[in-house]
Amino acid sequence: MGEAPHLTFNLDTPGVSTGHLVVPRGVDCEALSLPVFSCNRGEGPRLLITGGNHGNELEGPIVARRLADWLPEAQTCGRVIILPELNPLAVQAWTRTTPVDGKNLNRVFPGRFDGSVTERIVDAVLRLLLPMADTVFDLHSFGPTWDFPPAVITHPIADADLMAKTLRMAEAFKLPVTLLWEYYDTDVMFDAWVHRQGKVFVCAEFGGGTVGSEALGIYEAGVRNALIALGLVEGTAESPIFRQQKSNQTLETLLSDLLKSPARGIFEPRCSVLDKVQQGDLIGILRPMESLSTGSIDICAPTTSIVCGIRSGGYVNADDELAYLARPRNLS
Amino acid sequence: MGEAPHLTFNLDTPGVSTGHLVVPRGVDCEALSLPVFSCNRGEGPRLLITGGNHGNELEGPIVARRLADWLPEAQTCGRVIILPELNPLAVQAWTRTTPVDGKNLNRVFPGRFDGSVTERIVDAVLRLLLPMADTVFDLHSFGPTWDFPPAVITHPIADADLMAKTLRMAEAFKLPVTLLWEYYDTDVMFDAWVHRQGKVFVCAEFGGGTVGSEALGIYEAGVRNALIALGLVEGTAESPIFRQQKSNQTLETLLSDLLKSPARGIFEPRCSVLDKVQQGDLIGILRPMESLSTGSIDICAPTTSIVCGIRSGGYVNADDELAYLARPRNLS
Repeated sequence: MGEAPHLTFNLDTPGVSTGHLVVPRGVDCEALSLPVFSCNRGEGPRLLITGGNHGNELEGPIVARRLADWLPEAQTCGRVIILPELNPLAVQAWTRTTPVDGKNLNRVFPGRFDGSVTERIVDAVLRLLLPMADTVFDLHSFGPTWDFPPAVITHPIADADLMAKTLRMAEAFKLPVTLLWEYYDTDVMFDAWVHRQGKVFVCAEFGGGTVGSEALGIYEAGVRNALIALGLVEGTAESPIFRQQKSNQTLETLLSDLLKSPARGIFEPRCSVLDKVQQGDLIGILRPMESLSTGSIDICAPTTSIVCGIRSGGYVNADDELAYLARPRNLS
Repeated sequence: MGEAPHLTFNLDTPGVSTGHLVVPRGVDCEALSLPVFSCNRGEGPRLLITGGNHGNELEGPIVARRLADWLPEAQTCGRVIILPELNPLAVQAWTRTTPVDGKNLNRVFPGRFDGSVTERIVDAVLRLLLPMADTVFDLHSFGPTWDFPPAVITHPIADADLMAKTLRMAEAFKLPVTLLWEYYDTDVMFDAWVHRQGKVFVCAEFGGGTVGSEALGIYEAGVRNALIALGLVEGTAESPIFRQQKSNQTLETLLSDLLKSPARGIFEPRCSVLDKVQQGDLIGILRPMESLSTGSIDICAPTTSIVCGIRSGGYVNADDELAYLARPRNLS
């Protein structure tokens, strides 16, 4: 092993400063220098914003960079640290996982000082940046193969107080959807690690597909609303317009709400995100492509629900995820 | 070499039939069986529809499959042959090029009987399917990393009569944009090969990003309009609604209208497709990501134009394409 993970600058410096988080070299690659922004206005909330956890979700790094443009003018108190790219190796490769070690950064928490590069990144962030914050926004998106509404999500948290605080923080983004998401694998994820320390962590799951100008405006407005709610910046929160509507709803999706593909073929989506569907309504069609005489398979809604996420048209294998259904939280 | 390329069924059979185009095996892979649909209603226009030329453009294969569902009822005369996946190896891998030989199918025309698999596919299509058609629709899209309006494009054609016929065919789709596209490399592309035989060839360049339900509806409506214009099916052509508008415009883009990246970094789009921009207007921002103290670079419109295509937010290298600008054809 080389040097220990370290910062090239002092986060306690008052005002705006920038520098790097240095992740030490290992047997698999050289040391990495991850750009870090800090705006320290003294007493007040302490927030860490991260992007680029998965490398094919570019909304996070871009919105993080935009925040760093206007926070120096706007922030009136507290401390904000921004790490636009948690995983620059994956962002540069436009891949979900790290090309060097094949690992999904959001499945290796708490990382390892002497692990492979993905684990070393996580270890460095938890040692040097997380202790400086009481609240974390991790800016994800659904990547290029899904359609998903602008949303802020949290997994269920055992601690009822923290669950309530976290949901309030998520709803403060005023995005179309706040989603309570039952999921597997959460033990080794960023949010679980932060929640175990009693801190608030929300995950923005901002759309999917192309990263366009309008979508980026919505994402940024959501984060600005949350900064206002925290008291870090002044202003009036406003619900952004998504598909000609201003709306906010809190939904819940269970493991059993996830529709998977019954076979291999091309999935053809037949509904859009936020569509309300009744039991039996057509969600999509799975089309075997080996022969034009093989019948297609209708994928139907098992129950009345709201389409929260839908796979882009494309080849899928049996058991691949096709759609996330959801329902209003207070009706579950 | 193995067997010669062949069809497993007779395209002259009256009515609807399906089977396969067999591309012979070579040293690089086994024989391929490409599903083919034929609807032969006797005298009339002879049309070949292909999808999946590039494997990460799924609109084509899906719309082609949908056509095969309703053409048997709707087609009143002539002959339609549909090949939903020109390049199944690339479609299954969700890659632009063929994984086996690394080739771009739309850059190897007229292919080779004894070439690598991509060349053998092209050779088989030109030998066995193209002679059965006077008109070709090749259903592309802009893939996952671009935003592009529903459009039908043609490159400039030296023969003025064929150019006029081809533009009329393209405009018959009644999609938001008909685009006359000056491009390099056209000699080895599908359209150039078909045009040299005096046949009409148009290329649908249907959007980009996620392949969603609404977009697929627009694409299918465009092809249906073109089938009506050819006289193959009865009905009334109607302009589909795209972003709350019905519109059709014929644009032209020149080689000099292509904006390329001046450096490496993350491209942040700041405008949307079909936006009208004046000289100096912001198209996007290039953000170097190595350091937060390095300045961003504004990408501005060099002249008054219409944004026809814009790159999704993401990492780009110097000289990567960022935007296609265009102008109304009659003003050029």
